[in-house]
Amino acid sequence: MVEPANTVGLPVNPTPLLKDELDIVIPTIRNLDFLEMWRPFLQPYHLIIVQDGDPSKKIHVPEGYDYELYNRNDINRILGPKASCISFKDSACRCFGYMVSKKKYIFTIDDDCFVAKDPSGKAVNALEQHIKNLLCPSSPFFFNTLYDPYREGADFVRGYPFSLREGVSTAVSHGLWLNIPDYDAPTQLVKPKERNTRYVDAVMTIPKGTLFPMCGMNLAFDRDLIGPAMYFGLMGDGQPIGRYDDMWAGWCIKVICDHLSLGVKTGLPYIYHSKASNPFVNLKKEYKGIFWQEEIIPFFQNAKLSKEAVTVQQCYIELSKLVKEKLSSLDPYFDKLADAMVTWIEAWDELNPPAANGKA
Amino acid sequence: MVEPANTVGLPVNPTPLLKDELDIVIPTIRNLDFLEMWRPFLQPYHLIIVQDGDPSKKIHVPEGYDYELYNRNDINRILGPKASCISFKDSACRCFGYMVSKKKYIFTIDDDCFVAKDPSGKAVNALEQHIKNLLCPSSPFFFNTLYDPYREGADFVRGYPFSLREGVSTAVSHGLWLNIPDYDAPTQLVKPKERNTRYVDAVMTIPKGTLFPMCGMNLAFDRDLIGPAMYFGLMGDGQPIGRYDDMWAGWCIKVICDHLSLGVKTGLPYIYHSKASNPFVNLKKEYKGIFWQEEIIPFFQNAKLSKEAVTVQQCYIELSKLVKEKLSSLDPYFDKLADAMVTWIEAWDELNPPAANGKA
Repeated sequence: MVEPANTVGLPVNPTPLLKDELDIVIPTIRNLDFLEMWRPFLQPYHLIIVQDGDPSKKIHVPEGYDYELYNRNDINRILGPKASCISFKDSACRCFGYMVSKKKYIFTIDDDCFVAKDPSGKAVNALEQHIKNLLCPSSPFFFNTLYDPYREGADFVRGYPFSLREGVSTAVSHGLWLNIPDYDAPTQLVKPKERNTRYVDAVMTIPKGTLFPMCGMNLAFDRDLIGPAMYFGLMGDGQPIGRYDDMWAGWCIKVICDHLSLGVKTGLPYIYHSKASNPFVNLKKEYKGIFWQEEIIPFFQNAKLSKEAVTVQQCYIELSKLVKEKLSSLDPYFDKLADAMVTWIEAWDELNPPAANGKA
Repeated sequence: MVEPANTVGLPVNPTPLLKDELDIVIPTIRNLDFLEMWRPFLQPYHLIIVQDGDPSKKIHVPEGYDYELYNRNDINRILGPKASCISFKDSACRCFGYMVSKKKYIFTIDDDCFVAKDPSGKAVNALEQHIKNLLCPSSPFFFNTLYDPYREGADFVRGYPFSLREGVSTAVSHGLWLNIPDYDAPTQLVKPKERNTRYVDAVMTIPKGTLFPMCGMNLAFDRDLIGPAMYFGLMGDGQPIGRYDDMWAGWCIKVICDHLSLGVKTGLPYIYHSKASNPFVNLKKEYKGIFWQEEIIPFFQNAKLSKEAVTVQQCYIELSKLVKEKLSSLDPYFDKLADAMVTWIEAWDELNPPAANGKA
C-alpha cells in the first residue's frame, strides 16, 4: 500500500527556488487544510486561491501562508461581462488565477493532493521538481531513450543529432500521481481498487506532433511562454460537460507548443492523490466528452496554425476559429466554447497589457 | 556504484516463455563466457551465434547451450554473391542471424552485457520482459502519461480516446542499459566516468511520427512483423562508417512500423553493460555518421511510403529507392547502401520463401 509522506517537523525550505517569480493557484470549495502538509515546500510562495461555488462560504487557509482569494463575486467584478468565460462549479475556474497572476511561473495543485514519498521514503518536493523541469530545456524533435538528457547522470545517447541537443524552452511541466490514478469514470467503475504504486523515476519531453491527456491536478507552466493558452474552457454549471477542462487546455497548449517550438515535459514530480472522486458523478460529467473526444482529438492532431501566428494569443485566436469551423457541427457547445476562447484572450490581454509587463 | 547481479545458484527457468518460438542472436569475436551468467534465463533457448572476423578462430560456448554458429565462410557459402550485404568486422553482421532464424521472435544481445539488478536487488530476466513487451500491444497514436497502459497496475488515463485503447501489435522491444550508457564518442570523451545508475521502471510506446536512436545491444523483435526491415546496413571492413548499424535499422524500422501501424516499445528491461568501448576508436568509426545523421534524420522524418507498400519487404524496397534518390548526393556510400538494402531483401526472401513459413 502506498502512503503519503509525513512532513511533520520538516523545516520550511529557507531558500525556495523562484520564490518571487511563481504563484501557486488552487481552486477549492473547502478548507485548505491540505496545505499544512505542504508547509515545508510551499509556505514561502504566494498563493492565488480561486474559490468555487457559494461566495458567502468562508475558506480557511492555514496560518502563515501569504495569499489572495477570489470568489465568484470577485471574478464578476474584475472581468465584468467577460467573466462568462470562467467556469462556475467546476475546478476549471482555476484558470482565472493564471490570468490575475503577475508572475512568470504558475504551479497549480488540487486540494486533495498530498505530499508523495519517493522510493527511499523521502518526501517529494513537487514544486522544486516542476521548477527544475521548467528551467531546463525540452527535446521534442527526437526521442532520447535515456529520458531527460538534461538530468544529472543522463545525456543524449549515441545517434541523437547534435544539432538538436540545445533543445527548446520548456513551457509546461506535467506531474503525476501516486495512489489514486487519474482514470475516467468507466475505468474507475471497472477497476475501483486500482492504485498507482509505481514510482517511475523519469522526466521526458512529449514528442512534437504527439498529443497527451494533460491533468490539471499537479501542473506547472511558464505564463510568459504559454499562459494565454492555458484556458480551461467552459465546464460545470450550465455546460453540458465536465472533467474535460484540463484535457481541453492540454490539447490546445500542445498544438501551440508544437507550432512555436516549445517543450512539454511529463513524469516527475509525483503527488499523492488521496481521494477517488465518485465515478457515477464523474460519468455524468464526462459522458459527452467520452464520445466527443473521438472527434476532437483527430481535430487537434490535424490542426495547422499559420506562419503568421507567432504569439500565443495569435495562435489561440486561430485555434478558436478552427474550433468554430470544424467542431460546431459536433455540438452547438463548441460554437459557444470558441467564443469563450476569444473572450478569454480579450480578458487576458486586459489584465496583462503588453506595456505593463514590459513586452511588445 | 551500480553492479551486475549475481546469478550463481539461480535455477534455470523451468518454464521459459516462447521457448520454441524465439532465437537468441549473438554477434561475437570472442569466447561467450558471459553466457554463464545468463544461464538461468537464456539456457533453455536456441542461440544463433554470428562469428565476426577470423573464421579460423574457435569460439567457446559454455556447455549446455544449444546453438548454431556461422562464421564468414558460412555466410559466403549460404548467401553466395549476396553475402556482400552482410557487414564484416562489425557487429552489424548480427543481422545474418535474423535472416537464417526460422523462429517468430528474435532477442539479440551483445557479449559484454551482463545481468542487471532491479532496485530490490533481484536479477533482471531481460528476455522475459522483452517477451512481455512484444506480446502486449503498443499505443503509438496518443501518449499515455502513466506509461505502458497494458502493464499490471496501470491503465489508460482519463482523456485517452477509447477507440485507441485496443492498441496495435508490438513489433520491436528496445531495452536499456545500466552502468555504461550507450553514448557516442564525443560524449564518451567529455564524460568518461558517467555511469547510468537510474533504473526507470517504465515501458513505453514511442509515438507515431517520432524517430529514436535504436541500440542493438539489448533488443527484441517479431520477425514476422518487422524482420525484413531489421537490416543493420554496411558497416566496418571496407566501409566509411561504423557504429551506425543499429541506428540505421532503427530509423528504417520506425518509418515502416509507423506506415504499417505497428508498435515500438522502449524502456525495460535493463541489462548491465560492462565495458566502455574505446572512444578514440569509436570517434574514427562514427565521425562521418555524426555529420551525415544531420541530413539522414530529416530524410527519415520526411520519408513517405506509398499506400501500395503493404508488406515489410515492399516498404523496405521503397525506402531503398528513396535512399538512392535523396541520400546519394550526401556520399556515394548511400548509393551502395541502397543497393545492399535490395540485396538484403532478395537474400531474406531466398532464405525465407513465403511458402515455407505458410504465408502468402
